[in-house]
Amino acid sequence: MNRQSGVDIDLGNRCSSNAYNWARKTFINRQQKPGQLLQGLDGAFSNVMQFNDVRLGISSDGIGTKIELAERTGIYHTLGHDLVAMTADDLAANGFEPTSLSNILDVDILDYEIVDQLMQGLHAAAGLAGLAVTGGEIAELGSRIGGYGSRMHFNWCSTALGYLPDRLVKPVDGSLIREGDMIISLASRGFRSNGFSLVRRIMTDNFGPDWHLVLYDNARTWGEVLLTPSLIYCTLINTLLTQELNLHGIVHITGGGIPDNLARVLKQSGWGAVIDKPCPALAFMLQVQTMGRIADQQAYRLWNMGNGML
Amino acid sequence: MNRQSGVDIDLGNRCSSNAYNWARKTFINRQQKPGQLLQGLDGAFSNVMQFNDVRLGISSDGIGTKIELAERTGIYHTLGHDLVAMTADDLAANGFEPTSLSNILDVDILDYEIVDQLMQGLHAAAGLAGLAVTGGEIAELGSRIGGYGSRMHFNWCSTALGYLPDRLVKPVDGSLIREGDMIISLASRGFRSNGFSLVRRIMTDNFGPDWHLVLYDNARTWGEVLLTPSLIYCTLINTLLTQELNLHGIVHITGGGIPDNLARVLKQSGWGAVIDKPCPALAFMLQVQTMGRIADQQAYRLWNMGNGML
Repeated sequence: MNRQSGVDIDLGNRCSSNAYNWARKTFINRQQKPGQLLQGLDGAFSNVMQFNDVRLGISSDGIGTKIELAERTGIYHTLGHDLVAMTADDLAANGFEPTSLSNILDVDILDYEIVDQLMQGLHAAAGLAGLAVTGGEIAELGSRIGGYGSRMHFNWCSTALGYLPDRLVKPVDGSLIREGDMIISLASRGFRSNGFSLVRRIMTDNFGPDWHLVLYDNARTWGEVLLTPSLIYCTLINTLLTQELNLHGIVHITGGGIPDNLARVLKQSGWGAVIDKPCPALAFMLQVQTMGRIADQQAYRLWNMGNGML
Repeated sequence: MNRQSGVDIDLGNRCSSNAYNWARKTFINRQQKPGQLLQGLDGAFSNVMQFNDVRLGISSDGIGTKIELAERTGIYHTLGHDLVAMTADDLAANGFEPTSLSNILDVDILDYEIVDQLMQGLHAAAGLAGLAVTGGEIAELGSRIGGYGSRMHFNWCSTALGYLPDRLVKPVDGSLIREGDMIISLASRGFRSNGFSLVRRIMTDNFGPDWHLVLYDNARTWGEVLLTPSLIYCTLINTLLTQELNLHGIVHITGGGIPDNLARVLKQSGWGAVIDKPCPALAFMLQVQTMGRIADQQAYRLWNMGNGML
């Protein structure tokens, strides 16, 4: 239990395992049919769907409570970058090239201007990621949706689809990692879309309920700094893979941070890793960590601390 | 503006158009690449993605405020049928065979038992639809999610993927409809996942805040009757298509009812239609309509009135 953020991580893991166990029992529904799930060398199912000679991956995620930053600052056009980053970069981390994204926007009451800014941002982010927005749904759910302030409140999630290039025998899963491999870190420029429950609690404790208005430096408020949109790495990753650079493992640093996400990829080969020169944490991240009196070990599990992809 | 339900349909349409216009500008991102969007004979983009010789469709939707029925009755294992029906049957209505579904469950605070019942229901519904649950995400969003009662509140949506069988030259879109074609209606057994804002308002006006506890007949409460899960038609539709039965148009009756959804399909050919023997509306639907003093014309736009697919 992470008491500071109010999120019970163990319960979350148990619920996710439950959902996966029920889902796994449905894989047989596509056995020997288009869309069948491929099995890895170890017999376990991978997240690869096969249609004739086409191998596809799918990834679903939302941008969580980072949305409150947009509600606080009134800046809505950057969230599309966070939305695309969460799913497209998850696909890229397995070697898939993201091609298509479908999004679902749940709102309490519609506000045309806000929807326009969100979709404009999604359009821009889709361009950076090189994918097409091929589907979408906007649902008005009234009091089932809450948030900050008096304008439209919403939750936003997406499902991205990607294909595995022919030159990859299988998804990039870390199993090819071997002694002497080098880890390259891609710098992030802020928080992605995870760990915001605790960030918001720290900010409230330190600056009071209107913390987003407090100046961070001469140019920006804390609200603006924390809203900094996610960098999207998938086009770089996919270009590297196309250049026949053999990446043995790719780690997208989201919830769980470097320790959990790197460990999952390293587990495939059994090797360990030394990170002697990580990208430095951004100054405002360190300030949040200090204000919250969060130990380094915990901070690197909660946030990316300046490293977006390994 | 539908004042009775509090939902502004015109604003909803404008926001959806806005989102589609931004999305359309992203189609160029996949031009001449895997996942490119196919153009129809009229030059407009269809919802078909092409990967080599594989043609895929994608559909996203949620189950809206029908979830409140589960919160009121404490019955959670049937909602999976509604979730699958909304997206899988939308794909089937275009001739796609649904293969894979990814779901996103947004909750305020997790309840393991409820998650288990939801996922058990999704597993059962996936079996009926013949698809695999290939992805999922559970997000804890605290006060961004609201609902009825004191247990876990949630919103649930899914994105389904399907492929177009080789024997179909293009998706079933109504363009082949010609004079003399016959419409066959597939009966529904209740409300699907649309029009519930007004249903709930009518129930509250007539029976007070605890309307779900009021007996509908000797065996069931109103809460249980309104929760009746959606029938899933996609396996039947896909079997008919495989049997080389030439369906010229398929209409999934969701929001907009028979008039709007049938009109969209008929528009492709320019023909009209006479429906002289629709499936009869279910008794409890008629009772809701009477209690709400809803004219027939409006009722058939809001709800399926006993006809799930045409």
